[in-house]
Amino acid sequence: MGAQQSVDFYWDVGSTNTYFAVFLLPAILERTGASVRWLPFNLGYVFRHHAYALAQEPEAKLRHRFRDLERWAARAGLPFRVPRNFPIKTSRALRGAIAMRRWNAEPRYIEAIFRAYWERGEDVSQYATLRRVATSLGVDPDQFEQESEGESVRAQLIRSTNEGLERGVFGAPTLFVGSEMFWGKDRLDFLEAELQRAKSA
Amino acid sequence: MGAQQSVDFYWDVGSTNTYFAVFLLPAILERTGASVRWLPFNLGYVFRHHAYALAQEPEAKLRHRFRDLERWAARAGLPFRVPRNFPIKTSRALRGAIAMRRWNAEPRYIEAIFRAYWERGEDVSQYATLRRVATSLGVDPDQFEQESEGESVRAQLIRSTNEGLERGVFGAPTLFVGSEMFWGKDRLDFLEAELQRAKSA
Repeated sequence: MGAQQSVDFYWDVGSTNTYFAVFLLPAILERTGASVRWLPFNLGYVFRHHAYALAQEPEAKLRHRFRDLERWAARAGLPFRVPRNFPIKTSRALRGAIAMRRWNAEPRYIEAIFRAYWERGEDVSQYATLRRVATSLGVDPDQFEQESEGESVRAQLIRSTNEGLERGVFGAPTLFVGSEMFWGKDRLDFLEAELQRAKSA
Repeated sequence: MGAQQSVDFYWDVGSTNTYFAVFLLPAILERTGASVRWLPFNLGYVFRHHAYALAQEPEAKLRHRFRDLERWAARAGLPFRVPRNFPIKTSRALRGAIAMRRWNAEPRYIEAIFRAYWERGEDVSQYATLRRVATSLGVDPDQFEQESEGESVRAQLIRSTNEGLERGVFGAPTLFVGSEMFWGKDRLDFLEAELQRAKSA
């Protein structure tokens, strides 16, 4: 038995597929005993870097995409609902996660903003929403906002995004076990197999 | 218990992901008692229709795609190998499948050309290869080639491709159970769930 394994999870609250991965991962962590390191990154920036735009996908593909998401929601038992506002700017929400490290509330904050946006359609691009989330976690909303807007947190988000790009991230969710990269909510079975393999190695 | 269920399977031998689906489907058919209707379609034509080109994907995504395929091959226990010639023109190979209906050899032919191309890198765009496949199936290669080049078979491939487009096909593999569409080798679990649901309905 080696040291505890860790999964690096590159996430953006603006990503539909990441919503599913956020709520499907805990069972895998439980089965494998691995932990997770949350790495916010700006997916819009990554898409611009790779010149990708969801809206350019063929219409037939976008139609099917929605049906496929409904099936995922039904199977996972998640109250998923496509938000009216989509896409949104997510930099504030992402910086908020980094800020929340100060209160040891990062994982709970991430879960809360994914639920707010992907289940109740709340506008997590705005501080009005993010402050409510902070309050619900017992964190002072003024301190939270001030921390989120600070230079250190801004720099950390940029660094985290650039590091993701350097490691080959092109979409979300992207997870790593060591140097092995896994892209997509539909590849968590491969991720789990890698964790099991590495555990017994 | 209703009538036997049938899966409509739109396939092109030029599609990497279809290779996997062709060999993953039989176990599902066995478990559900469903049958399959093979529907060749010209994926290159469909991609041009939707203005999609694999080569335009970000390089990081293409790199990851290969790693992902290796994982699929390992899990499925398939001797998958990326062919040196890729992409290739597949119209002849597709027409050959329709021709093979005359000898009741369509399923065996499809399996054989997928193995030839995706396991041994043989050039299935050429009659030299396709004729060898015909011979291995006990079909006279001259008769096979003549049937494949006939007007009726040509018309059937065009019709099958257009019908796929009308039903919303934008990529491969695409499978239908009634009007429910499933895209991707990684959605066969949803397909199986639908077959089980429809069976017990």
